Amino acid sequence: MTENMTSTSSPCAACKLLRRRCAKGCVFAPYFPADQPLKFASVHKVFGASNVNKLLQELPEHQRGDAVSSMVYEANARVRDPVYGCVGAISSLQQKVAELQAQLAIAQAEIVCLRMYQGSDLITFNTKMTSFSPPVAPSSPSR
Amino acid sequence: MTENMTSTSSPCAACKLLRRRCAKGCVFAPYFPADQPLKFASVHKVFGASNVNKLLQELPEHQRGDAVSSMVYEANARVRDPVYGCVGAISSLQQKVAELQAQLAIAQAEIVCLRMYQGSDLITFNTKMTSFSPPVAPSSPSR
Repeated sequence: MTENMTSTSSPCAACKLLRRRCAKGCVFAPYFPADQPLKFASVHKVFGASNVNKLLQELPEHQRGDAVSSMVYEANARVRDPVYGCVGAISSLQQKVAELQAQLAIAQAEIVCLRMYQGSDLITFNTKMTSFSPPVAPSSPSR
Repeated sequence: MTENMTSTSSPCAACKLLRRRCAKGCVFAPYFPADQPLKFASVHKVFGASNVNKLLQELPEHQRGDAVSSMVYEANARVRDPVYGCVGAISSLQQKVAELQAQLAIAQAEIVCLRMYQGSDLITFNTKMTSFSPPVAPSSPSR
């Protein structure tokens, strides 16, 4: 393996794993530093170095960092759960959203009921207050 | 290209795209039928045929259908959104969960307030009712 590197630092994690020369301007180097070998290992295992390379090349530089982060997230999810990957997380979150929407609907219905009850309570209160209005004072026997 | 196929049907979508013989027992054939060429095209573009093949081989047969579905979902998301892929959906769902949790907390706090108000309203009602208790009937002058 030729170690005639154009950069002065050690090869990036991608070039190290792929056993290739880490040339100046290597597309992987900014996102896969040598001290984080697992980061590249997982995207390489799941997407393949060639696909990651292609995807990064097709994106403008300012979007590559986010693309790498999302690919690393997806790859780690697929390594943990080879059947569902991060689609498992989507499914759990969709279920959570449905549960919360149901709980919120129940809570909002309870609020409506409580407000209606409070309204009818005030009506009852006013009705009872009227029926208990002070009786007319008996005419004074002295007059 | 040799067309000496062991199966009588046309090659599966994967073998057709990869221009290879679709042998009996092809790992792709049950999940990538010939009439759905885009299904394989997207997983091939994102994960690579070799990685898909490897992943399927490592799984028991009863889990392969789900694995293919989740990979197709992920691949389509990545084709639509090369920067965030399906991690974008996870992010949106997490935001939705946070919003719903906040709305639910507000609704539950309102329920507590309404119940407390209703309680204090009953106390006020009872207090007022007591102060308006019918006055003691005046002693009859005939007795």
